[in-house]
Amino acid sequence: MNAEEKLELMKVMFNPKNIAIVGATDSMIKIGSFVFGSVLSCGFTKKIYPINPNPKYQKRKILGMDVYPSLDKCPEKIDLVGLVVPPNAVLDTIKQAIEVDIHAAAIITAGFGEVKSEDRQDENKELVNVADKGGLIFIGPNSMGFYTSEDKSSPLHLGFGFMIPTPGNISIVSQSGTMGTVLCNALQNIRYFVSSGNEASLTLEDYLDYYAQDEQTKVIALFVEGLRAGSRFKDICTATTKKKPIVFLKAGVTKGGARAANSHTGSIAGSLNLYKSVFKQTGVIYAEQLTELIYLTKGAEYLLPLPKNDPLRAGIISGGGGFVVHLTDLCEKNGINVVDLTKVPNGPHLIEEISKYLPFYWSRNNPVDLVATRDFDLYKVITELMLKSECFDIIITLTSAGLSETIKSLKPVNDYAQRMVTLLKQVAAQRFEKSIKDEINLCLKYPDKKIIYIGFASGFDSPVYEQYDKNKIMVFGGNPELATVVLRKLHDYQKFVNMKNR
Amino acid sequence: MNAEEKLELMKVMFNPKNIAIVGATDSMIKIGSFVFGSVLSCGFTKKIYPINPNPKYQKRKILGMDVYPSLDKCPEKIDLVGLVVPPNAVLDTIKQAIEVDIHAAAIITAGFGEVKSEDRQDENKELVNVADKGGLIFIGPNSMGFYTSEDKSSPLHLGFGFMIPTPGNISIVSQSGTMGTVLCNALQNIRYFVSSGNEASLTLEDYLDYYAQDEQTKVIALFVEGLRAGSRFKDICTATTKKKPIVFLKAGVTKGGARAANSHTGSIAGSLNLYKSVFKQTGVIYAEQLTELIYLTKGAEYLLPLPKNDPLRAGIISGGGGFVVHLTDLCEKNGINVVDLTKVPNGPHLIEEISKYLPFYWSRNNPVDLVATRDFDLYKVITELMLKSECFDIIITLTSAGLSETIKSLKPVNDYAQRMVTLLKQVAAQRFEKSIKDEINLCLKYPDKKIIYIGFASGFDSPVYEQYDKNKIMVFGGNPELATVVLRKLHDYQKFVNMKNR
Repeated sequence: MNAEEKLELMKVMFNPKNIAIVGATDSMIKIGSFVFGSVLSCGFTKKIYPINPNPKYQKRKILGMDVYPSLDKCPEKIDLVGLVVPPNAVLDTIKQAIEVDIHAAAIITAGFGEVKSEDRQDENKELVNVADKGGLIFIGPNSMGFYTSEDKSSPLHLGFGFMIPTPGNISIVSQSGTMGTVLCNALQNIRYFVSSGNEASLTLEDYLDYYAQDEQTKVIALFVEGLRAGSRFKDICTATTKKKPIVFLKAGVTKGGARAANSHTGSIAGSLNLYKSVFKQTGVIYAEQLTELIYLTKGAEYLLPLPKNDPLRAGIISGGGGFVVHLTDLCEKNGINVVDLTKVPNGPHLIEEISKYLPFYWSRNNPVDLVATRDFDLYKVITELMLKSECFDIIITLTSAGLSETIKSLKPVNDYAQRMVTLLKQVAAQRFEKSIKDEINLCLKYPDKKIIYIGFASGFDSPVYEQYDKNKIMVFGGNPELATVVLRKLHDYQKFVNMKNR
Repeated sequence: MNAEEKLELMKVMFNPKNIAIVGATDSMIKIGSFVFGSVLSCGFTKKIYPINPNPKYQKRKILGMDVYPSLDKCPEKIDLVGLVVPPNAVLDTIKQAIEVDIHAAAIITAGFGEVKSEDRQDENKELVNVADKGGLIFIGPNSMGFYTSEDKSSPLHLGFGFMIPTPGNISIVSQSGTMGTVLCNALQNIRYFVSSGNEASLTLEDYLDYYAQDEQTKVIALFVEGLRAGSRFKDICTATTKKKPIVFLKAGVTKGGARAANSHTGSIAGSLNLYKSVFKQTGVIYAEQLTELIYLTKGAEYLLPLPKNDPLRAGIISGGGGFVVHLTDLCEKNGINVVDLTKVPNGPHLIEEISKYLPFYWSRNNPVDLVATRDFDLYKVITELMLKSECFDIIITLTSAGLSETIKSLKPVNDYAQRMVTLLKQVAAQRFEKSIKDEINLCLKYPDKKIIYIGFASGFDSPVYEQYDKNKIMVFGGNPELATVVLRKLHDYQKFVNMKNR
């Protein structure tokens, strides 16, 4: 099957009007029950046909739904079939699917291409031949499943990762199911997610192609162990990055990593230098590690497009002097200019403006240290002055979100401490709630300005940043360092786009 | 005053038999009440004298304690006085302290050396002269305070950072109060912490010297903007690192960072290359960023001494194939050998041992991918086989701690999802509790073996890792990357120590 034919069939796969799940079960310890549960939990409102030939289901329903013994017994034509059957039943199920005119499948079942035994490899080849001849595309085998919110009113998660994604504009392919699950949970806001597994039929390049052509996809994130079609990959990237960012983590770049990748997905890892050269030519954003991949993807959605100035001009504001010193270092190490206000046109004016609010001995320059103030409202006032000043392309500051968590984690050692912590919690609840509202409102008031918040409390997956994510406001949880690395990489991408679109 | 005299006085300061706090108040919005509250909250059981000349306190107590109008009215000789008075009252208070034979103070009051106005600078110089002549040492001014658990039964926190430290073996000097507070909260387990402020009397070198000579201090962590006595610093480090690790973060290394540091603590930042060369000669462990400083300090306490093998031989075990591939890359990038079991003496035997428990198609080498098993007990079994095999210097694996948090963060989109999440929470609570116990018990069973856990959920400050910290088990929250960087740096330090002590 050629790429165009695949793309046509993927339209049905990513927006099926109904689905069947062969191997659906209510036996809680089986993957089949997880997959069935995922479909019921994700908001999918269209018709679902659980299929299980086990005689016990002739008289019994699965979670209130009628069970069908085989695909040909379904009362209507099926758009997509999920397979959670034993390895030796996969080939027959696919044959049956083709017989009843199904052309898209997701094979969750493991034990195919990644298994080195000869008979398994032969079976894998036969599966591919049968599917190709029958005009059927499939995800996997050995996939943790996929998610699509192409129809936002009826998103579908057919898989077994512990996740409940929310619809959005990020599209992901991961050659590792676990890493894909971590990505989905950390990012949410998902358009498509595919755990591509062995890629016996559909490959990473096919999904990438589909995402590239999908107007709702704003950012593409890839976790890759090995590419099957390097030059096609390069061509798609070249055509895509001008319009939307592609963020890429390559696993298996070292000798040991390549050995591990080979035993994991059977893929042969290419040289990192080769990849890096392709990224440079094509403008793909290269993530060196997992947390960076998460923040680059989120940042690409929340922060792009970035201003054209080179270097980027950052304004920093915080209540802790040591923190702003460290953050300034991190910025400048990453080529971000922490503007010296004494040397830019509107700078001295801004210094005078800020001086109206701070004690005379404040730092009187950028970074702005609020001199350990206890007047939390000053943050809002000074940040707004800085936003309006036109001196900066981006403001970087600390967020109050998560401070309540810090207080919660204090462990009282005596009665007085207990009373103090209780009091702090009460005060903080109100105080921080207000600060959080102020921060979010400020961002909403200046939708075209770029702000990055840094939260000392908690990591990338913390619910304390939920309100920020809902409003697409960038928070780096526990990660002042990554904030600057991510900003540099996104700005490099911006320069690439500006050059290409000139 | 010379260094030896200072050290003698510091013995009293770090273990006072009583303290006075000038500026203590029950007016909640003032720093004086925070500082007084800290003293009451930290477990300090010795005599406290709140001092406040305000007439309203002639008839009123502060939190049930008698208030004294001045230091000379205290009924006994005072070991240590804390100052939370307005800047213009500092000098007189110090003079009075000297008159009543007090020789140690902590000046929390800000507005001295960091303030550029001439009269403030003059006042600062006079303060230093008066104190020196009177044989009084002091912390600050412009300090967020200090903590000492030299007397574990009566630890003292005299400061206003939001923290309740627990006694332990880590000693910290931070030239930034905020960063010091972040460090204390993230690390706990504190022997001494000093927010050194302007260092008008006691300097970072003095504290370092004291920590170096303190037998209970196992690890020293420093957050530094500028050194006042470079060659003394170098001498102390040279003498100390052979016996205990010093971890160091230098802030203000870039042009902008140096500008910020100068306005923050009035310090002049030195060149990073100069610092790096000193670190190399003296074996100081250099942290490039805050999170690294936290994990290096914790790791130095939990993981040292490390085995002598070079490179370190790591065994990796996880249920996610993509994760082990990525982690293997991160190890090898940092010079850690992910042992190829087919090439080491006991390797093939270990492969056979593990094969008894895993499906035939498992990776059959290190890293060990448990092939998406749902049998969580396998972790314990395989990890123990690896610990006993003698093939590895360190085992790196994922922890179950925090997985409950991941499940908690799932957001049900419909009734079925709600039921599923509730069920998952119940199952997970038991399941993960058991896994966590297994993990901790395994570490306790092999106290001489080195294990690093990586937790996807949550950052460095999460309470989900509390049980691990209590048992000094190393968990990198949300940070597979930093695990390998920290391991490399600690191993470099180990090699330095081995060479010096040869």
